Amino acid sequence: MWTRRTDLAVEARELWQESTEKQTELKGVKSREKDLNGFKVTTVEILDDEGAKALNKPVGTYITIEIDRLVQREDNAFTLGSEALGSEISGILKLKENDSVLVVGLGNEAITPDAIGPKTAKNTMVTRHLVEKMPDMFGSMRRVSVLVSGVLGTTGIESADFIKAVAEKLKPDYVIVVDALASRKLARICRTVQLADTGIVPGSGVGNSRAAINKETLGIPVIAIGVPTVVDAATLAADLAEQSGAKDINPEDMSSYGGEMIVTPKEIDSNVNDISKLIGYGINLSLHSDLNIEDINMFLS
Amino acid sequence: MWTRRTDLAVEARELWQESTEKQTELKGVKSREKDLNGFKVTTVEILDDEGAKALNKPVGTYITIEIDRLVQREDNAFTLGSEALGSEISGILKLKENDSVLVVGLGNEAITPDAIGPKTAKNTMVTRHLVEKMPDMFGSMRRVSVLVSGVLGTTGIESADFIKAVAEKLKPDYVIVVDALASRKLARICRTVQLADTGIVPGSGVGNSRAAINKETLGIPVIAIGVPTVVDAATLAADLAEQSGAKDINPEDMSSYGGEMIVTPKEIDSNVNDISKLIGYGINLSLHSDLNIEDINMFLS
Amino acid sequence: MWTRRTDLAVEARELWQESTEKQTELKGVKSREKDLNGFKVTTVEILDDEGAKALNKPVGTYITIEIDRLVQREDNAFTLGSEALGSEISGILKLKENDSVLVVGLGNEAITPDAIGPKTAKNTMVTRHLVEKMPDMFGSMRRVSVLVSGVLGTTGIESADFIKAVAEKLKPDYVIVVDALASRKLARICRTVQLADTGIVPGSGVGNSRAAINKETLGIPVIAIGVPTVVDAATLAADLAEQSGAKDINPEDMSSYGGEMIVTPKEIDSNVNDISKLIGYGINLSLHSDLNIEDINMFLS
Amino acid sequence: MWTRRTDLAVEARELWQESTEKQTELKGVKSREKDLNGFKVTTVEILDDEGAKALNKPVGTYITIEIDRLVQREDNAFTLGSEALGSEISGILKLKENDSVLVVGLGNEAITPDAIGPKTAKNTMVTRHLVEKMPDMFGSMRRVSVLVSGVLGTTGIESADFIKAVAEKLKPDYVIVVDALASRKLARICRTVQLADTGIVPGSGVGNSRAAINKETLGIPVIAIGVPTVVDAATLAADLAEQSGAKDINPEDMSSYGGEMIVTPKEIDSNVNDISKLIGYGINLSLHSDLNIEDINMFLS
Repeated sequence: MWTRRTDLAVEARELWQESTEKQTELKGVKSREKDLNGFKVTTVEILDDEGAKALNKPVGTYITIEIDRLVQREDNAFTLGSEALGSEISGILKLKENDSVLVVGLGNEAITPDAIGPKTAKNTMVTRHLVEKMPDMFGSMRRVSVLVSGVLGTTGIESADFIKAVAEKLKPDYVIVVDALASRKLARICRTVQLADTGIVPGSGVGNSRAAINKETLGIPVIAIGVPTVVDAATLAADLAEQSGAKDINPEDMSSYGGEMIVTPKEIDSNVNDISKLIGYGINLSLHSDLNIEDINMFLS
Repeated sequence: MWTRRTDLAVEARELWQESTEKQTELKGVKSREKDLNGFKVTTVEILDDEGAKALNKPVGTYITIEIDRLVQREDNAFTLGSEALGSEISGILKLKENDSVLVVGLGNEAITPDAIGPKTAKNTMVTRHLVEKMPDMFGSMRRVSVLVSGVLGTTGIESADFIKAVAEKLKPDYVIVVDALASRKLARICRTVQLADTGIVPGSGVGNSRAAINKETLGIPVIAIGVPTVVDAATLAADLAEQSGAKDINPEDMSSYGGEMIVTPKEIDSNVNDISKLIGYGINLSLHSDLNIEDINMFLS
Repeated sequence: MWTRRTDLAVEARELWQESTEKQTELKGVKSREKDLNGFKVTTVEILDDEGAKALNKPVGTYITIEIDRLVQREDNAFTLGSEALGSEISGILKLKENDSVLVVGLGNEAITPDAIGPKTAKNTMVTRHLVEKMPDMFGSMRRVSVLVSGVLGTTGIESADFIKAVAEKLKPDYVIVVDALASRKLARICRTVQLADTGIVPGSGVGNSRAAINKETLGIPVIAIGVPTVVDAATLAADLAEQSGAKDINPEDMSSYGGEMIVTPKEIDSNVNDISKLIGYGINLSLHSDLNIEDINMFLS
Repeated sequence: MWTRRTDLAVEARELWQESTEKQTELKGVKSREKDLNGFKVTTVEILDDEGAKALNKPVGTYITIEIDRLVQREDNAFTLGSEALGSEISGILKLKENDSVLVVGLGNEAITPDAIGPKTAKNTMVTRHLVEKMPDMFGSMRRVSVLVSGVLGTTGIESADFIKAVAEKLKPDYVIVVDALASRKLARICRTVQLADTGIVPGSGVGNSRAAINKETLGIPVIAIGVPTVVDAATLAADLAEQSGAKDINPEDMSSYGGEMIVTPKEIDSNVNDISKLIGYGINLSLHSDLNIEDINMFLS
């Protein structure tokens, strides 16, 4: 039996629906859709333990923004998309005037589908030191610090420990963690951004679940921003088998390979670059409400 | 109907066997296996048009070396593997004493599974300028030049045109082209190196077949060294469907995605580094028969 | 005695003036200054052999654009600067409607002050393959191909031979070569772009002069675009000595070091990125007169 | 008047000697030389406040290893040099059996002469997670974690704060910080490694002195390993002026440039790679006394 892996609440809800085989009401879960700047936004709220159990996700709000228009490079899609994303981040963060934020890029920059976090970090405006050292010039900005947490094998330190250590020192009002996710459907790969107010379990997208990064572990609210960049090959095989009505599909060479296989777009490198920039700009727009995209370009160049 | 893509002669032979559904003799094709330094080496010779038609590959010799031991990092596997590879390359090249060689790394270094060629180029000893400018010191070495051909989108120039232009200028006795390939079986991904004396059609591994690089187009014998790094996701889906006896498998979201999907190991980055080094060292050992791995380490460091 | 190295015609003229110790008329050389978009542009024309001998540069036109405003990140400096540069390139190129161009980035991307050429190549729009394969969509653009020539040690092939081979194949109407230069004055480092219609001797900026790339060697007009990124440390020492009136300055540890030393700005990495983008955009604006900077951003992203 | 910058104790002592103009005894300072594996090793001990004031460095032990043989690529120089370095590190560290170590790479990997720290980190064996998760296999190794502290502008967090936060979490027995330094003499650039048991003030090598990283600030002994990679251009100019007897040397264009200039070897990229590997291996040899260079190669590959 193959495990079906997904980090997306919208997919978890779909899986539940498929498993019940009819469109019954899912108790403890509310969802709604809207259009924002031409991007489809779906909000799934898991309201209580019943909903949490059904979808195998913690109680909280999960917002999915579909970014096909960005990847297909439609006119103006970057501007409209980062504004839509920024507006949804603002809706979740509920920042007060002098709140400070720690942005954390999880993942391994050397592995392309896992580089969403580190690359978003490079597109995030770092202001904490400027606000503190040049208050006359930057005093009106929010203090933002950025952490790229590396991976266990290159530091020997768990991401969760690392972030906790830094968060205790900096005492930010919010932590935003950005990470790559696993999806169950090819159609969502690099096409979707998920925001959640529940924090994250890093590495769950690629099979190594480690200590959670959330309000329980850090003592600070944690917003998670994730993008599915891979489908686990075993998950895909199982799904295909099911669709075809086959009972005993057995992709023997998948296990004979002896390692883990992923399915990812041929264009993954440029997709990851584009989406990391989108998320970075969305974060910047939500944290510095008087800036526009031109200002951010100038700051980051 | 899905296309089944493979660049490997051993797989083409398997496909043929599966299609005939019995172990009949394949006319015009000879094959044999041996063990070399603990690595399994399979040679498939396509002898005539009948064999070429059956396997959909040009007449020629195809040698496959299975490198599981390298990827699993067994003791001494790198030394034994590069010596085995070097010995097989020598067997195909049949170099005379003063022959010169142009080594070409095909593919896009920015796309990990396509970076085998450029990364091998970095592990190849470049000696042409040394032999010509410092003959007292380097006069006993073979003249080796290295070309990384870039990709069409970054140069506007077809690889085949580019290599032809340079080969006409340098007039090497042999061209060795190194490229990433597509396999049909997950079990072969990053586990196999194929040598062929037939040249190559670049990009055939990832869906863009362009002008051939072979003796016909260059006027110089072309040895191709290739490594399968991806399975086309559609090919995999079709194979799985067939195995399961399903008639109408239809991975709808694969087409709805609107782009091409590949299946690749999670560890693709380190696999590509390891194998590129193996091939580079194999080439170096075959072209400079009096060197050992320590010498090559020193030269390249 | 130390050699004084400069690749800049404006400096060669200064050197001549200093050596004559008075502001006499320099025969065979004309020069003029103007302001373009707020950037100071100096044109030095070497008219005949007398001028060429005096300045130790071939007969031709040398245009220097001072880009302090870019490096100091003044508002709008990038747009105004790339338009000014594009306009001067157009003035030198005198392109006809269907002319095609080969842009060559010289230098070693792995050595920061030598990376102007390869990095400019990445900011240049490659259109040749698009025009030829999708004439309906791109037929109105000029055909531009791009070559990054690598360095002798990584290819074994002289840049001049390499470019000649490719130029013979592609037969462009113009070649534009972009390279890093050496200056004599710290004040010009990363502050100046020089255009010349005389071609270039690659590597002269860093001490290895090799075969020329110009109309004589290629049979095609060659425009050179260069940026001084280093001052040779020995040149600087000699200049300082002279200014101070010292006769026998002897920076002994410079020779005892046993290698070549360069003087470069601490901010060289970001300077090289900024200037390479400026040159790439200047080239794009001059080759595709109906595009603006937004269009180029979109094309290159 | 120009400031003379040096981070090296051996140079500070030379400066003192030059300033006194005779070879008087320097009170509070002891020094000795020895040969280790063919490398010259100089130990300067600053014994008390008098010595500290004279040399403008904290009380402590400073060991300088001259590595010309490595940079000139003499046979076996890497093995002999990393063993010599490892032996001197062991002499300073005085590790007990189960001591754990945090290795910190300071500096900016994107600026070549400042990349010694981050690149050394990549050559350091990370074992903490292995020892803790696979004690059967790795339990006999020392626990080593690695931190690359980034730079203020990319994180908004001071290196000292960052290291303190992580050190408080991990509670290592020793911290080793690795950083690039400034030298006063060209002849020492990339030719010298300095060990000190005094900790470090990061950025002092390139003009931004920030909070110290030492036993006072961290509560843990801090060993500093530094390599001079640049000479400040103003320092060099002042030194040259002095040597030449000039009173009023005035390198006007150095100030007119408006930024900071550094003098560095043309080969800085390969020098930094070679030396970072040397330091990493020296650290590995000192922390894991039963390993040899082959073992380390295998672990890091």
